[in-house]
Amino acid sequence: MLTRRKMLEAQERAAAMLDRAGIVLADKERLEIEVADLGLGDLQKSGLQVVTYINTDRYCAKELVMFPRQTCPEHRHPTIGDQPGKMETFRCRWGKVWLYIAGEHTPNIRAQLPEGDQGYYTVFHEIELNPGDQSTILPGQLHWFQAGDDGAIFSEFSSSSRDELDLFTDPRIQRIPVIQPD
Amino acid sequence: MLTRRKMLEAQERAAAMLDRAGIVLADKERLEIEVADLGLGDLQKSGLQVVTYINTDRYCAKELVMFPRQTCPEHRHPTIGDQPGKMETFRCRWGKVWLYIAGEHTPNIRAQLPEGDQGYYTVFHEIELNPGDQSTILPGQLHWFQAGDDGAIFSEFSSSSRDELDLFTDPRIQRIPVIQPD
Repeated sequence: MLTRRKMLEAQERAAAMLDRAGIVLADKERLEIEVADLGLGDLQKSGLQVVTYINTDRYCAKELVMFPRQTCPEHRHPTIGDQPGKMETFRCRWGKVWLYIAGEHTPNIRAQLPEGDQGYYTVFHEIELNPGDQSTILPGQLHWFQAGDDGAIFSEFSSSSRDELDLFTDPRIQRIPVIQPD
Repeated sequence: MLTRRKMLEAQERAAAMLDRAGIVLADKERLEIEVADLGLGDLQKSGLQVVTYINTDRYCAKELVMFPRQTCPEHRHPTIGDQPGKMETFRCRWGKVWLYIAGEHTPNIRAQLPEGDQGYYTVFHEIELNPGDQSTILPGQLHWFQAGDDGAIFSEFSSSSRDELDLFTDPRIQRIPVIQPD
């Protein structure tokens, strides 16, 4: 679990990265940056920081901030009732991110698989996103991503988001953050 | 109608504004910035510049660039078949924009109504958006907006976009640009 102190530190670090990239948040948004350690207990290795601008039953927009080499583990967005799974477009704004999907295994992928968790990664077709590049993930499509050496900031434009329903390959993962008092 | 030369000039100017704001476009996107003079023939007065990042049948994301005091005239997004009208969230990234919707008439609004076109504006409840501010327009809701003295850049996150179906209060308006050879 994430301690409150670690959460606040990560919020400050993410806010500073956004400042440096010229992306302006409202004061309230800075205080509410979501810090997701995914229950794995090592935020710098696996996790992400999220600013949700808007999430309606029709569309969603977020800014994702990732620290250097931080990884969002492999997952997919399932069908919900009669609604197809979430579809999402990642657009890199700052830094670099490598995105992995099913398809031809890219030789010598650039991401480093999180130590000890290698068994929970199964798709290795690499897409490199630099500022101005974007890529769309289709409903149900397995994917994971890792920031480059300086970290990354990218926008996520998508259909309605219900993060709590994401299906991760690693069964230990809890998508919704649990914050522990210090 | 817009001449090709004027379109290219407006694309360059919009691209320079995006550069200055630190918003990176792919080379192809820079060449395809949509310049909409709305058929009114005076782009600096009424019109807008649009980068469409993604438009699917579920969601859409654009960057809108407006020159100083440029106005997007009053319009709404109608119901289409069994689909409610487009819903959209404007998030200011740079500069300033005043957005007008139905509701209490704001005394002494900050926007200047486009000379000669005053009769085509009917809603005057003012919302000022500075960087980090955002506001959501509901389906069918009349709205118009004008950039401040330095222009504005703002993101539009929305449900699927079909600009050609927008209903403008001014019947002379043609939403889809017609470009004239020089």
